Amino acid sequence: MNKAERIRFLDALRALLGASHVLSEAHDLAPYATDWRKRYHGKPMAVAMPGDTAQVAEVVQLCATHRVPIVPQGGNTGLVGGATTDASGTELLLSLRRMNRIRDLSTADGVLVAEAGCVLAAVQQAADGAGMLFPLSLAAEGSATVGGVLSTNAGGTAVLRYGNARSLCLGLEVVTPQGQIWNGLSALRKDNTGYDLRDLFIGAEGTLGLITAASLQLFARPAARRTAMALVAHAQDAVDLLQQARGALGAGLTGFELMSAHSLQLVQRHFPRLRLPLELSSPWCVLLELSDNEGEAHAQARLEAVLGLAMEQGRVVDAAVAQTLAQAQAMWALREHIPLAQAQEGLNIKHDIAVPISRMAAFVESTAELVTQALPGARLVVFGHLGDGNLHYNVQAPLGGDAADFLARHQDACNRIVHDAAAACGGSFSAEHGVGQLKLDDLLRYKSPVAVAMMRAIKAALDPQGLMNPGKVLRP
Amino acid sequence: MNKAERIRFLDALRALLGASHVLSEAHDLAPYATDWRKRYHGKPMAVAMPGDTAQVAEVVQLCATHRVPIVPQGGNTGLVGGATTDASGTELLLSLRRMNRIRDLSTADGVLVAEAGCVLAAVQQAADGAGMLFPLSLAAEGSATVGGVLSTNAGGTAVLRYGNARSLCLGLEVVTPQGQIWNGLSALRKDNTGYDLRDLFIGAEGTLGLITAASLQLFARPAARRTAMALVAHAQDAVDLLQQARGALGAGLTGFELMSAHSLQLVQRHFPRLRLPLELSSPWCVLLELSDNEGEAHAQARLEAVLGLAMEQGRVVDAAVAQTLAQAQAMWALREHIPLAQAQEGLNIKHDIAVPISRMAAFVESTAELVTQALPGARLVVFGHLGDGNLHYNVQAPLGGDAADFLARHQDACNRIVHDAAAACGGSFSAEHGVGQLKLDDLLRYKSPVAVAMMRAIKAALDPQGLMNPGKVLRP
Repeated sequence: MNKAERIRFLDALRALLGASHVLSEAHDLAPYATDWRKRYHGKPMAVAMPGDTAQVAEVVQLCATHRVPIVPQGGNTGLVGGATTDASGTELLLSLRRMNRIRDLSTADGVLVAEAGCVLAAVQQAADGAGMLFPLSLAAEGSATVGGVLSTNAGGTAVLRYGNARSLCLGLEVVTPQGQIWNGLSALRKDNTGYDLRDLFIGAEGTLGLITAASLQLFARPAARRTAMALVAHAQDAVDLLQQARGALGAGLTGFELMSAHSLQLVQRHFPRLRLPLELSSPWCVLLELSDNEGEAHAQARLEAVLGLAMEQGRVVDAAVAQTLAQAQAMWALREHIPLAQAQEGLNIKHDIAVPISRMAAFVESTAELVTQALPGARLVVFGHLGDGNLHYNVQAPLGGDAADFLARHQDACNRIVHDAAAACGGSFSAEHGVGQLKLDDLLRYKSPVAVAMMRAIKAALDPQGLMNPGKVLRP
Repeated sequence: MNKAERIRFLDALRALLGASHVLSEAHDLAPYATDWRKRYHGKPMAVAMPGDTAQVAEVVQLCATHRVPIVPQGGNTGLVGGATTDASGTELLLSLRRMNRIRDLSTADGVLVAEAGCVLAAVQQAADGAGMLFPLSLAAEGSATVGGVLSTNAGGTAVLRYGNARSLCLGLEVVTPQGQIWNGLSALRKDNTGYDLRDLFIGAEGTLGLITAASLQLFARPAARRTAMALVAHAQDAVDLLQQARGALGAGLTGFELMSAHSLQLVQRHFPRLRLPLELSSPWCVLLELSDNEGEAHAQARLEAVLGLAMEQGRVVDAAVAQTLAQAQAMWALREHIPLAQAQEGLNIKHDIAVPISRMAAFVESTAELVTQALPGARLVVFGHLGDGNLHYNVQAPLGGDAADFLARHQDACNRIVHDAAAACGGSFSAEHGVGQLKLDDLLRYKSPVAVAMMRAIKAALDPQGLMNPGKVLRP
């Protein structure tokens, strides 16, 4: 595209959306050009901000005509560079943020229809306002959007009971790479009429088309919730406690998070006002949440029964059950501040692995040995969604070391150690963050070539021009 | 394919599988040639019965070389003709029944790996034997196979709590149309590494490749189950009772089936040994099931509380809670005998519709009016999974009429009335049975053309020779 063509394209775009919804000045582009973790620095040709689905379709048609690649962006909270353009200045960043309406909410059907730019917290609040629950919950929920959490199939802290973003989505509205609108906003629980296009777009990170709206599943709000923290001596004790709690509480067990004592010590260092309810006398701490349909007292008794038995059996060293909502929120705050404390402590090498629960303890122990052998003094910050077999197995520079230098020198080798170890356990190198730009090589290394070939065939079939978020998920 | 080519192909097939695993005599083919409902009569060139995945891959390669279309078949219990060949004598029927091993079962991971030919009941029993639950349950479970229930994304009576077949599958092993083996038998709850190929094969009815094995999710077995029947005067009362029970019982509500009084009267007529626990003084009956993690007494009290309140409120006319396992089984037997009683009564026009719960009562009432206006004397046999918004809205010939003639003359018009009514409510013409051959026209009529075009693009990309179950799901 030469300069004259570029001008014609931007003029057409402005005519379509109104000049105020097309950004092209460097200082306007800046907030959209860099990812949240500041690892990827793109240079969009412009930022287009359509206000409705018809406009999205027209923008996509315009891009198809001019062969302009499109990079969709929601809240820009992704962790793998999936919503950042390349540095060529030829890609259009398409921000869905203006499309932030909740179009419909039916308590009778348990369905909420939200546009792609709707912030996750706004969906939670709308459900809550109607006396229902939208359970998807994650640290970035104040900024992350519906389109983003679906395009990355986000996870979070309630997957154990309610599943990931995929499980909570009943239907989609999508603009195809040809600029057509597919209205698949179903409110049905069952519909076996052809290929599952919905689940193909979910988790495709915008490479097959643009999600513009979604029908999301709401749940009855539990009558009571109870949160507890429990200290255990070994990772295997946490796994055994999980099985025990799951057996006793069934679907009532709505949260089961693991945190290493070291992660909590980082929180204490950087957020000293957050108080620990237990003295960290063991290397591992578990956060449990019970949702109960009967009431506070019943919930309390059930959770205490599980933890009491586990203590008798020597599986749990010490435990505290929150007695008030404030205490429960304080426990969750400890968990949620781990990534922030880690960021305060300095740059670190992040992983988002999953392994089968039965291999979890062995993975944690053997990988710790491998990492500390290869990188003497490196500090492990291990925490995550044990109930889903998903840990953020992060590695921080040695105390007092130069974190940026550590990252630059050791990131690749460290990724290889951790991802090889997960793969050896039948695990995944990306449990809930996706592939984006960050893990393109991992995908080729760990994924079956047969699967990659099918992915390429699907990409070529649906997006033959290759204009939808190019260079993400699959290396071109 | 001329005769010499056909002989060469069959010789190669016998060399591959052993002569005893290739059937080509008419009397051997017969059980595979006709569907369970005896609506479709195919003429397979032969039946191939591979014993393992490598053999399936070799058969597919052989077929690709000789351009022989493949129709996969499991238990042959499908309701839409999806597993029946055409009458040309050129299609190979590939039976997966010999592949019936349970390869692995891990209680720690809650995962069972079963081959495609494994009968559903065998999977349930294996889970039960390990002290766990595989919740997928449907009338044909004694014959239906894992490959079949996944290829049609089967539903059944436990979808309300545990989801359909799709929700219970963690990973697949698939032989592609090129005869390659994709090992995607994951035991992970979370894995965001590229396009969701698993869900693309689930529900594709064998048109994109052959499912040869699956990793399936097991659950903790509830401590107690309680079943009840409740009579209601209007369909809307049943819907209101559903909301009330869901609010009070949450995930404990594992079954919620609706049966018209007329359906139960048919059961009484044809299976008089099955006793009704309530006198049918109302036009609708609901079957509820509660699964409880605490025990029998707790379950009993919870279910009685819900039904007691609903009776006080006038929503429920009469109710009976099963006091013993035998009573509970008798209640379920009434529900499960409806399709059998209906078959005894004579041929009928079946539907498998879904509508949003909020539209259910209006759909039921207005459709009854439309059908009986168009087909005077026609008898409605309405029952199904109300909790999922899914009804089998079946239409039987007038009492004493010629059922075969009624079917031949009125099936198309009747389908149109019922499917149009479902579509007008935002519903589906196939909730859990799939498309197969039976609903090819419905798919084109009711599905968005944008979605159909994407389906065709995916089919062409993955199966460019068009040899995988041709003429199913999509008209060629």
